Amino acid sequence: MAVKITGFGCYIPEIVRTNEDFLNHKFYTETGKDFDDNPQVIIKKFEQITGIKERRYVSDDLNVSDIALIAAQKAINDAKIDPETLDYIIVAHNFGDVKHGTTQTDILPSIGSRVKRFLKIKNHRTVAYDIIFGCPGWSQGSIQAKAFIESGLAKRCLVIGAETLSRVVDPHDRDSMIYSDGAGATIYEKSDDDSGILSHESATFTEKESHYIYFGETNNKSNVSDRTGYIKMYGRKIYNFALSNVPKAMKSCFDQSGKDIKQLKKIFIHQANEKMDEAIVQRFYKLYGLEMPDKIMPMSIDKLGNSSVATIPTLYDLFLKGHFKNQTLEKGDIIMFASVGAGMNINALTYQI
Amino acid sequence: MAVKITGFGCYIPEIVRTNEDFLNHKFYTETGKDFDDNPQVIIKKFEQITGIKERRYVSDDLNVSDIALIAAQKAINDAKIDPETLDYIIVAHNFGDVKHGTTQTDILPSIGSRVKRFLKIKNHRTVAYDIIFGCPGWSQGSIQAKAFIESGLAKRCLVIGAETLSRVVDPHDRDSMIYSDGAGATIYEKSDDDSGILSHESATFTEKESHYIYFGETNNKSNVSDRTGYIKMYGRKIYNFALSNVPKAMKSCFDQSGKDIKQLKKIFIHQANEKMDEAIVQRFYKLYGLEMPDKIMPMSIDKLGNSSVATIPTLYDLFLKGHFKNQTLEKGDIIMFASVGAGMNINALTYQI
Repeated sequence: MAVKITGFGCYIPEIVRTNEDFLNHKFYTETGKDFDDNPQVIIKKFEQITGIKERRYVSDDLNVSDIALIAAQKAINDAKIDPETLDYIIVAHNFGDVKHGTTQTDILPSIGSRVKRFLKIKNHRTVAYDIIFGCPGWSQGSIQAKAFIESGLAKRCLVIGAETLSRVVDPHDRDSMIYSDGAGATIYEKSDDDSGILSHESATFTEKESHYIYFGETNNKSNVSDRTGYIKMYGRKIYNFALSNVPKAMKSCFDQSGKDIKQLKKIFIHQANEKMDEAIVQRFYKLYGLEMPDKIMPMSIDKLGNSSVATIPTLYDLFLKGHFKNQTLEKGDIIMFASVGAGMNINALTYQI
Repeated sequence: MAVKITGFGCYIPEIVRTNEDFLNHKFYTETGKDFDDNPQVIIKKFEQITGIKERRYVSDDLNVSDIALIAAQKAINDAKIDPETLDYIIVAHNFGDVKHGTTQTDILPSIGSRVKRFLKIKNHRTVAYDIIFGCPGWSQGSIQAKAFIESGLAKRCLVIGAETLSRVVDPHDRDSMIYSDGAGATIYEKSDDDSGILSHESATFTEKESHYIYFGETNNKSNVSDRTGYIKMYGRKIYNFALSNVPKAMKSCFDQSGKDIKQLKKIFIHQANEKMDEAIVQRFYKLYGLEMPDKIMPMSIDKLGNSSVATIPTLYDLFLKGHFKNQTLEKGDIIMFASVGAGMNINALTYQI
């Protein structure tokens, strides 16, 4: 028995922040030192490495639960289901609702409960909870939905990834330019044919890696009164970690599907850094003694940045809606989802359309 | 195939706060008004209704991840397993690490990742994540572990409930006296006999109920500069909600087990309010036309208060360690776990020892 996606939806926030919008930011190094480069050069180098030209931020009135709802509503409409028939609402995030102008995470009640309320679901047996698993949270929620359906615990699950990283960035940290906001949602159900999740792989690396992405203080060390926690990362360490481990996890996942690598049509990978993602997929193909095929990895990072748990479902939804010209997928095609992020967590899924 | 507990452990914080310790607190009503009663009377009434005389707080140097580790280590030792053989670490909480003197939730990385690091587990396939499900989080994590084991995703899971509510209480709110800190942990594995989880039931009520427990501001309205979020509840609404819905959920759960109600030996219920818990269990038996049996519901609320997700595993661990004199359980006995909390979520499990 396979478990497949029957509905998809995403929310791309309306506010566009270009790289030029960061020109007036005073960036410092991790240790609070000035950079040798001027802001123009910092931004140019940033764009060359990450491929990010713009990112999206939610408006001040919206929170994670609001944008999770919008994506959920679209997925429900796309699947043409009655939301009362949902057995589970699983919401992946890492900061929950952080209202504009505040610094506290509000997950009381859970974002899942809030989305369920917004959807006006009366059925008490629709169980709603949140999962914290770094950027790979949406894909991990998908693996959980599959396990619930296979074990007989559920027939139909809504899995959402929603995050507003704009609310937790340090304005004095160059890396803040990476982060973005967004939401993506999927409906999972039992499949009556060969389509669905063929295989999956998950891993959590903590020995040295647990705090490669962490909650830390501002790089502006002159502001000694600011003890606020922000999202922080060791970019170089993550790059090396991802290159060593993501291709192997992807291969382990794909090999479990029993399919031939030449059948793989597209890889939808978590978008944190364009150069890193390309290097990962190149290494993945190298493990099969192959060159990376042309157009195997659709990317929207130039316009959307890294929206954490929302990245993959948003990217796949854009693809399905025809965003990538002359690129299509057909019934029976094999694709992969792969992600890496805080934890440090890695996961991958092989999926037959 | 059943899934059973093979190891148990808990951590009860060392700092004891008695009701008298709250005598110097200036309590206000929800709307910021003074109470008619003096502090002695407020505390006496509180004790009469809730049964709480003392609660436990962690020392300033400890966080949720630290006490989760202590409980986890005990459960691992109790089960006599190699932690490297764990497939999942599932941590239930609702606020994560909130360091002493701060107000921000730190779940980057997840508490599961932190516990895995503290346990020095090298195995990358031990997947760690957090679940947000209100007070019933530990029991919901247990249901997830069961689904993972049944679906073939896992063979051995560590499920932890850990919370430090002392870090998120409003000192001007009477209800702050309810809350406590603690951690409990369990190892789940496939059972080779009839023992284990026989049935379970979960529900999420959000139509009117989603914000019966919520993140809100201080009752001290004169302090207009304090916009900090604290744990808040509508006690009367929760009482009525719980009495209407928890007994029904427990009956639905128990009936699915196929056992006779007279076989039920003990109920380990989430401890938020002694009077409420007694009324729930009385109503549960009334649904079978029975009186509540003597000593059916072991309680430790007088000494431990409401430690959220840690309450049930701590209570059960105390029972197993002989804390309740002249009360024992034997191999083959049937028990129940039942919980209600933020979400509003309810769940119950029937378990054969």
